Amino acid sequence: MPPLIQRIVLVGTGLIGTSLGLALYANGFAGGITGIDQSRDEGLEALRLHSVSSLATDETRQRAALHEADVIVLAVPVLAILDWMARLAPLLRPHQLVTDVGSTKLAIASAAQRLCPGQFLPGHPMAGKEAGGAALAEATLFKGAPWLYTPLHATTSIEAEWREWTERIGAHTSDVAPARHDELCAWLSHLPQFVSTALSALLEDTFGDAPELRAIGGRALREMTRLGSSPFSMWRDVAHTNETAVAATLLALEQRLSHVRENLHTPELREEFRLANRFRKHSSP
Amino acid sequence: MPPLIQRIVLVGTGLIGTSLGLALYANGFAGGITGIDQSRDEGLEALRLHSVSSLATDETRQRAALHEADVIVLAVPVLAILDWMARLAPLLRPHQLVTDVGSTKLAIASAAQRLCPGQFLPGHPMAGKEAGGAALAEATLFKGAPWLYTPLHATTSIEAEWREWTERIGAHTSDVAPARHDELCAWLSHLPQFVSTALSALLEDTFGDAPELRAIGGRALREMTRLGSSPFSMWRDVAHTNETAVAATLLALEQRLSHVRENLHTPELREEFRLANRFRKHSSP
Repeated sequence: MPPLIQRIVLVGTGLIGTSLGLALYANGFAGGITGIDQSRDEGLEALRLHSVSSLATDETRQRAALHEADVIVLAVPVLAILDWMARLAPLLRPHQLVTDVGSTKLAIASAAQRLCPGQFLPGHPMAGKEAGGAALAEATLFKGAPWLYTPLHATTSIEAEWREWTERIGAHTSDVAPARHDELCAWLSHLPQFVSTALSALLEDTFGDAPELRAIGGRALREMTRLGSSPFSMWRDVAHTNETAVAATLLALEQRLSHVRENLHTPELREEFRLANRFRKHSSP
Repeated sequence: MPPLIQRIVLVGTGLIGTSLGLALYANGFAGGITGIDQSRDEGLEALRLHSVSSLATDETRQRAALHEADVIVLAVPVLAILDWMARLAPLLRPHQLVTDVGSTKLAIASAAQRLCPGQFLPGHPMAGKEAGGAALAEATLFKGAPWLYTPLHATTSIEAEWREWTERIGAHTSDVAPARHDELCAWLSHLPQFVSTALSALLEDTFGDAPELRAIGGRALREMTRLGSSPFSMWRDVAHTNETAVAATLLALEQRLSHVRENLHTPELREEFRLANRFRKHSSP
């Protein structure tokens, strides 16, 4: 039996899309991968890196590539994924699979039920860097990284084949319900991001480019603010599509910080460190 | 002229003290280093690693070593440094220098003026790991790390020689007033620590050892909670001796998080990311 997946269209050749193309080819994918990106430079960079075998730069070529694709991967920020789903819905052919890499899943899963029932597998590779762009792409980006799926129906043959590819490139796949995904990610991914952004913005307001910053900041500061470089474009979409859960985690942390602040001089501080030490033991790989 | 510093006593052979001994010997120090530690195991580990040339384990040997020392380095948490200063004051001989590696400097500088005027050089190497102990010590721990001094008088000859050693082991030394040191460190070191502790403790309360934690947590989560492993013993002393400044930075971050939370859906979120992105550019080496 020939493989079901021979032609892939990558919508979005930024860091994730381009890394995905590189990873697939590095791990034996022998078919064609066509890239689509609104930025001509990102597309050309993906082509130069051999992450895609061709680019579809105009409407006509895009339609042709999408028509011929076995799998269409939406590797753009969440709101752009929703736009693409609406655009793709009337064009889809019955055997085609659409999947995505968006950071939130509830809005996408719900749109999928409406727009392309039975043909959409929501996915979320938890890999990335603090800066985006095809130029930073790596074939090993997904090695050891979680790749969550929030399936909406029993696994189809083409979905099974796609899942195998994501495992072959090194990701650890697992399934979770869309609402639970967004709640978990609010705590474990979105909260750390917004905290790092708030801390970085606060320090920028306090210090600007004061020379002391470079003289004093060490590894701890660097790590706690690294996510401060993350692009607004991606995180705006997370904030828009997971607002309630993210707001709840932020409020919980505000209360926790105020608890620490009020107990800097009491035995309760020891309990906070005990819990924090324990968390690190639980969460270490 | 023979060097002024031929005998050093390291009070505290944990991560910092043991690394200091290793670094001095690795960079040409030819004298004796005697270790003192309340934990017999930590002392023995420092001796095994050749970070110290001898151990003083009982009161008599400690007195003898302290009597003969040219430099006494207090490498213990801040409150223990203050205890040692009171213990040393009546024993000090005029040519001896006492220095320390404590994370806050105002309380120590003020005690130094009172207890050993003219003989104390407050210092703060900004290096470390999330876990302590002699076993993790490295001769290169201070390479490229800031080493702040808050001098209380014009530099003496033995202080100049000690400063040279801290530069020779790779640290970047600079001077700052004690109050400014504690204010800067509240923002750039203590705030990141207490945020990481609060975030880790909150996640421990929320997730405990839920298996999803390991399945989902990625590099971002690991980095933002790494300092959650830090030992209470050290940070309790920071909280006690820099409480006002630390409380002010925590309150500022609470307000900033609430600002982010209230603007998850407004254009103001873009401004937070813009400031955070700019901070990262300013603070990058």
